[in-house]
Amino acid sequence: MSNRLITLTTDFGTSDYFIGAMKGVIASIAPAARVADITHEIAPYNILEAAFVIAQAAPYFPKGTIHVVVVDPGVGSDRRAILAEAGGQFFVAPDNGVLTMALDRAGTAPAKVRSITNAKLALKNISRTFHGRDIFAPAAAHLARGVKPAQFGKRIQDYGRLAASEPTELSPNSWRGTILKTDRFGNLITNFHIGEFFAIETNPFVMRAAGAQIRRLALTFSDTGRGELAVVVGSSGYLEITANQASAAAELGLGAGAPVELQIETS
Amino acid sequence: MSNRLITLTTDFGTSDYFIGAMKGVIASIAPAARVADITHEIAPYNILEAAFVIAQAAPYFPKGTIHVVVVDPGVGSDRRAILAEAGGQFFVAPDNGVLTMALDRAGTAPAKVRSITNAKLALKNISRTFHGRDIFAPAAAHLARGVKPAQFGKRIQDYGRLAASEPTELSPNSWRGTILKTDRFGNLITNFHIGEFFAIETNPFVMRAAGAQIRRLALTFSDTGRGELAVVVGSSGYLEITANQASAAAELGLGAGAPVELQIETS
Amino acid sequence: MSNRLITLTTDFGTSDYFIGAMKGVIASIAPAARVADITHEIAPYNILEAAFVIAQAAPYFPKGTIHVVVVDPGVGSDRRAILAEAGGQFFVAPDNGVLTMALDRAGTAPAKVRSITNAKLALKNISRTFHGRDIFAPAAAHLARGVKPAQFGKRIQDYGRLAASEPTELSPNSWRGTILKTDRFGNLITNFHIGEFFAIETNPFVMRAAGAQIRRLALTFSDTGRGELAVVVGSSGYLEITANQASAAAELGLGAGAPVELQIETS
Repeated sequence: MSNRLITLTTDFGTSDYFIGAMKGVIASIAPAARVADITHEIAPYNILEAAFVIAQAAPYFPKGTIHVVVVDPGVGSDRRAILAEAGGQFFVAPDNGVLTMALDRAGTAPAKVRSITNAKLALKNISRTFHGRDIFAPAAAHLARGVKPAQFGKRIQDYGRLAASEPTELSPNSWRGTILKTDRFGNLITNFHIGEFFAIETNPFVMRAAGAQIRRLALTFSDTGRGELAVVVGSSGYLEITANQASAAAELGLGAGAPVELQIETS
Repeated sequence: MSNRLITLTTDFGTSDYFIGAMKGVIASIAPAARVADITHEIAPYNILEAAFVIAQAAPYFPKGTIHVVVVDPGVGSDRRAILAEAGGQFFVAPDNGVLTMALDRAGTAPAKVRSITNAKLALKNISRTFHGRDIFAPAAAHLARGVKPAQFGKRIQDYGRLAASEPTELSPNSWRGTILKTDRFGNLITNFHIGEFFAIETNPFVMRAAGAQIRRLALTFSDTGRGELAVVVGSSGYLEITANQASAAAELGLGAGAPVELQIETS
Repeated sequence: MSNRLITLTTDFGTSDYFIGAMKGVIASIAPAARVADITHEIAPYNILEAAFVIAQAAPYFPKGTIHVVVVDPGVGSDRRAILAEAGGQFFVAPDNGVLTMALDRAGTAPAKVRSITNAKLALKNISRTFHGRDIFAPAAAHLARGVKPAQFGKRIQDYGRLAASEPTELSPNSWRGTILKTDRFGNLITNFHIGEFFAIETNPFVMRAAGAQIRRLALTFSDTGRGELAVVVGSSGYLEITANQASAAAELGLGAGAPVELQIETS
């Protein structure tokens, strides 16, 4: 139990002492715990992007893994800290919706979410600006060394949810979605999942983003002309707008949080 | 003892083979040691920034941790390699002052510093340009596997110190300080620590940097107007110059090593 | 055996969920394996750069280490996945030549290379675009938990090799080489190794790159005038073109894959 795995997902970057301090806190409280960085390059304050990233990575980790997710524009306000349990894994994060997609994906049983209120499981001095070090890392480490979830605080039902995590229906054949993330290659990952929108594989469709109309579904990134915009099914299962050997994000001037529309012909 | 934790702080970046080679050397000498990256994004050759970062991260690690700090503009010259022991932790670094703030902070007892001279505890072939791999990583790994500090070399007293790590008094109510680091958000971290300069919380003050005069103390980063310059107490305890939702570093054109002045009215 | 070390070298960057998913897959299959990042900042699709980096880092790791190298422009095509054994270490990668230099360097005995064909040692659902997660990470993890190399697939002899990994002779005293990598400081690392081209230490020479003619061998990076181009012997043993306190890559407009010529006078 004590050599549990703790993952870190933040918007802290890797050039400051922030990640080092969090790893130090974890090593001090739970010396046998192991730490795996997922990413610290979430765009600053971008809750939606972090929600997408942790939802994509978490399912590949074993049961018992503890995920710390700190993208926290409300730090210093009275937003709560939460500990969530879903699909046999644990998540520690601010209560701002950043766990929405991970908890949705983690299983059929509803997540058990607690408000972290036990001050004994945080550092003694809590700063106004760095709860990653003072609250979230200590909570994960205490959990790793065997503290029971119930000791962190009471169950809550009214934890935050991100509205933008799923597309909304505009009409029977059209939906408004959102860009979840721009990846390293400039591909724009939308929140349309192939599992729900599989009709684009057999029916004509149009995806509209920043004035562009994209009607082509490409099988892989290499299956398009240079700079040509196309829709691909990404490794996450979400539809992505790609510009072969170019950045769709730069071509369209879009990024995480931007709107996109999908219309599928069913005649 | 053999599964000791070794941290790495360097200016090597993460795109080369340098960090990989250091981790390989450590794994070969001390297979059970665990390695935690603090940062490899120290600005190239910026000893002051590295001194700040390791001083902020180290206190959160448990006793026995071994910190390797390699920012080494003097590599290839005759600067010494040192092993320092303070507050129950160990530090391996070039003797260029990079440990100044970490050792000052580590405890009331003076640090025990040794010059690393035992060639048996380095790689056989020592390159001119990569002592991180050839000297510092091996030293940390041998320490992790149980070699006693005394075996590395003799105690020294004349190890290097950074003059810029603390403000200097200009007059009874004014001090000249230094920017220690620009963080990811463009905040300028000064070397004025709230523990010493707490008077700004109750007295009028002015901080001067690059021609700007800043008179406001903000409680958190969100407590200021967009782009407005203010002083905040950072999570490190040091005063920071911030421009809300903007980069103070870009607005003022300043970075690590730049001068800053603080004047506090005491009438 | 089960706490074996797995290293990761990719062009995935660190801002996506890709590395997290790979670490999760490894932790699920081989919970005791330890993971060390070498770099994820290989220039996208740059096989030559990755070949250089893993060849430089691998020799410092202990026997039994498993290196995963994923720079994979051919993902989704029918290129093979391979498992190579050389010098007591293991390498998992696409069959595109990315292991050329690592295997050449690993020992006098020829490498044992197998085509990975056993579907039971991959994830059940294999995506078109992310074999790092679906094939390479699982292969490394299964190897770490004790699966024998022979179970992955049959030995092959016709695995890919990079032609550009070594210079070619133009005339008895001149060679055409290739830039392997630009390092963080803008130094251009060539594929001329001092072990073979030691004559430049005693004979006049000229290195030609992008119209520049460089005739000076400098002992360290600090031994040149500001911006002056010189050749140095890098920590890798390869000759590098350096511009002191400036970027040779920017001055010459060159990067990985660019040609360079070396002529050595022997009169």
